[in-house]
Amino acid sequence: MPLTALRAALADIMDLRHAAAVLEWDQETHMPSGAAEARAQQVATLRRIAHERFTSDELATLLDRALPESRRDVDLVRITRRDWQRATLLPARLVSEQAEASGRAKTAWKRARESDDVTGFTPHLRQLVELATEEANRVRPLIAEERGESYAPSNADARYDALLDTYEPGASTEDIARVFADLRHELVPLVAAIAERPVPEDAILHQPMPEAAQWAFGEAVAADFGYDFDHGRQDRSAHPFTTSFGVSDVRITTRIDPNFFPTGFFGTIHEVGHALYEQGIDLDLDRTPLADGTSLGMHESQSRLWENLVGRSEGFWQGRYADLQALAPSLSTVPRDTFVRAINKVEPSLIRVEADELTYHLHVLLRFDIERQLVAGTLDANDVPEAWNTTMQDLLGITPPSNADGCLQDIHWSLGAFGYFPTYTLGTLMSVQLWNAAERDLGSLAPQLADGTFAPLLDWLRTHIHRWGRTRSARQILQDVTGSDLDAAPWLDYARTKYSALYDL
Amino acid sequence: MPLTALRAALADIMDLRHAAAVLEWDQETHMPSGAAEARAQQVATLRRIAHERFTSDELATLLDRALPESRRDVDLVRITRRDWQRATLLPARLVSEQAEASGRAKTAWKRARESDDVTGFTPHLRQLVELATEEANRVRPLIAEERGESYAPSNADARYDALLDTYEPGASTEDIARVFADLRHELVPLVAAIAERPVPEDAILHQPMPEAAQWAFGEAVAADFGYDFDHGRQDRSAHPFTTSFGVSDVRITTRIDPNFFPTGFFGTIHEVGHALYEQGIDLDLDRTPLADGTSLGMHESQSRLWENLVGRSEGFWQGRYADLQALAPSLSTVPRDTFVRAINKVEPSLIRVEADELTYHLHVLLRFDIERQLVAGTLDANDVPEAWNTTMQDLLGITPPSNADGCLQDIHWSLGAFGYFPTYTLGTLMSVQLWNAAERDLGSLAPQLADGTFAPLLDWLRTHIHRWGRTRSARQILQDVTGSDLDAAPWLDYARTKYSALYDL
Repeated sequence: MPLTALRAALADIMDLRHAAAVLEWDQETHMPSGAAEARAQQVATLRRIAHERFTSDELATLLDRALPESRRDVDLVRITRRDWQRATLLPARLVSEQAEASGRAKTAWKRARESDDVTGFTPHLRQLVELATEEANRVRPLIAEERGESYAPSNADARYDALLDTYEPGASTEDIARVFADLRHELVPLVAAIAERPVPEDAILHQPMPEAAQWAFGEAVAADFGYDFDHGRQDRSAHPFTTSFGVSDVRITTRIDPNFFPTGFFGTIHEVGHALYEQGIDLDLDRTPLADGTSLGMHESQSRLWENLVGRSEGFWQGRYADLQALAPSLSTVPRDTFVRAINKVEPSLIRVEADELTYHLHVLLRFDIERQLVAGTLDANDVPEAWNTTMQDLLGITPPSNADGCLQDIHWSLGAFGYFPTYTLGTLMSVQLWNAAERDLGSLAPQLADGTFAPLLDWLRTHIHRWGRTRSARQILQDVTGSDLDAAPWLDYARTKYSALYDL
Repeated sequence: MPLTALRAALADIMDLRHAAAVLEWDQETHMPSGAAEARAQQVATLRRIAHERFTSDELATLLDRALPESRRDVDLVRITRRDWQRATLLPARLVSEQAEASGRAKTAWKRARESDDVTGFTPHLRQLVELATEEANRVRPLIAEERGESYAPSNADARYDALLDTYEPGASTEDIARVFADLRHELVPLVAAIAERPVPEDAILHQPMPEAAQWAFGEAVAADFGYDFDHGRQDRSAHPFTTSFGVSDVRITTRIDPNFFPTGFFGTIHEVGHALYEQGIDLDLDRTPLADGTSLGMHESQSRLWENLVGRSEGFWQGRYADLQALAPSLSTVPRDTFVRAINKVEPSLIRVEADELTYHLHVLLRFDIERQLVAGTLDANDVPEAWNTTMQDLLGITPPSNADGCLQDIHWSLGAFGYFPTYTLGTLMSVQLWNAAERDLGSLAPQLADGTFAPLLDWLRTHIHRWGRTRSARQILQDVTGSDLDAAPWLDYARTKYSALYDL
């Protein structure tokens, strides 16, 4: 009975959160412009009521009195209690200061970017770092207690660990720094070697292609991958995203560029990767806090797997290129080989979200480096532009002509999200570790991709990753499936092999 | 200060209600089919939380302590207290019994209609009448107290008054019965006289017209009427409706029939009429229970005014017919006069929602007659089919070949909504009373309609009706604007004049 009451209370909270997500989805896809202010109030009200209910003493009592009867019940109580503990470590005052500071920072960030004047954003960034530091200091003891006596990071790393915890539970700054150092050590020379080779011709991709044809091609591939349109749909939005209103309604959005097919297509299958994860969570977990990806890194492993390991592979296009050519007359005389080289072109560039499969991670390393120093207190907000430009030159060999295209390009810091960026690269590294394990179990996947057979791969991901929701941690999944922890080597092997072939290195 | 607290509590409740409305809108327009069950739970949760907060002792205390400082504040406290009193007269047990009974009745109704077997629905109808009777008996004392000593209806009428109160606050069964008797007295012979005349040719309307063209034409007219697409939008749904997420976001939906243009067009402008009302409410009232139409009748007066008095008028088509012809090749050789006769064809028919401007009200009179007897206890649910068929024969001169096309055609009773149907006709009667007052102030409107000039009419409606939201009752508005109460005579005059001309009576 007490467990029933706990489940009912959590179902209400999840309904409120999912309702907020519906309102946010509508805001980005269909809402008329004049409704923005009212909508912001509605979302804030739903999130506040959900937060009040989640952090209430009543919920703590229900957690204390719950009598778990199954393994699932035990997980539910354990993970929910942990969420409750973390949430209640933060006083309402801090949470609302963060929300307000971020609201102001977002406005200042947009203005600073438009006018390319970073000074308007600097004080906001400083304040957000201070608030994040306070948050981290409050959360640290919980993490220290959980990890036991062997956990003895520096003060600065302990703070960054506490921030990572929001996005990548269990991750440690020290581990990430070591993995990222491995990555940097091999990736920088690989990108440099590629830069010595002739640049592939990608003008063939910059051709008009009717939006309806792009849309239809993306949806057909999404359906083939296994995305369930009876429990999801695709809409247009300025920035692509995946959102879940429960396991039975997981939606994606896409942005179509009428003159550059990769924007829409790779955006679509990236989001499909996220959505397949959410659609694959056990229905048993629906309306509980466990019906979610276990970490942002694991989530990104799924989107990158479908986007890159499937969607940018030679095998996949063996099976699909003729379909695409039928829709895009400008490709009719382009050999497949040329097309595959074009969609895998590597070139250092300024903007993270437009970067290729390899240089992307140098953008992430740059951000990790800077935000780690910000949180450590060894870099002031004022010095971010210089640090950005210097590190970018080191890693990518280029320097932004403006801060708008440099340290002001991402929204994340204006949201107060420190510790988020690393998960993009963690996910990519995991994606190859998981892929190798899948091939160990299923045999080489390239022939299946060429064949348009995706079900065995999806089933494998469902079995080992998706269905568990948050009941298994990312580390647990990696260890169970691959026998090892996070490791840069598999991805580096993959990258070297693939790009050596593409670039005749 | 206490008023601020009251406003904050009400804003939360309105945000919850509007969020539920967004979820319901999505459900009817975009939601993937597999999400139905989860969505029903989410909406139920939001509505339950809103209801709990609204009927709470805390809200009563805030109402008691509020210190109104303005006329608006006084209205807010008065009307909210009245809503609170009415809502708290109904025990949670009754509310949930009604919800459950209606859930079961809806399923039974659908099945009964599909199989044309009314007996499966009869016990559900009986139970819903019983529950409505209990509701009415609980609300009666409040109404008796409000209306004072001169209020002395029969037991049966007092119960029906209490049900009407939900939809048409202040209405009395006796008044409605008298007005409907006037209506019947003149409308039945008018329809009979029309039946003697040659039937206008409306095959010209049953022609293919591309959906995109219908959509564009409807939206252009909507915009010309004054519907603000920056604070609203139009989507497709199986049944057209208007929904409001606050004054700044009022949306409509439409159903397009590719082979019958009137379905989409008149549906669109009917909903535009509702939406103009909601968009015209003072922003001051937003996020309070006062930001709503003052009654369903007054709401329908606005939709019927734009649909019929504007959209089915000779004047309007003087200005628009050429535009429509340009979109619909099949109309290119049809004279405007023939077209206007076709869209105003009068013919007794079985289905209310497909009925013309005149016979529509005979369908309403039929339903009022039956549900009044159900609530009075003088008609058993078992005897509804026979009563339906007999009365329909009296009023319309036809008898349904089946109950599916007879007493099972509407969803309303399966929702437990008794007292709703009369508001359709009340609104239509009001629409002409208001129109006449507008013409008194603005001069003859036909030339403006021909000219495509709708702003003076809309401004007049905004000034006298829309902006007030619920702060003025329907009766107050009618009396202020027309100097009289609800009256069938103006509509009958309008109907006689218009249809005598169309049918050469």
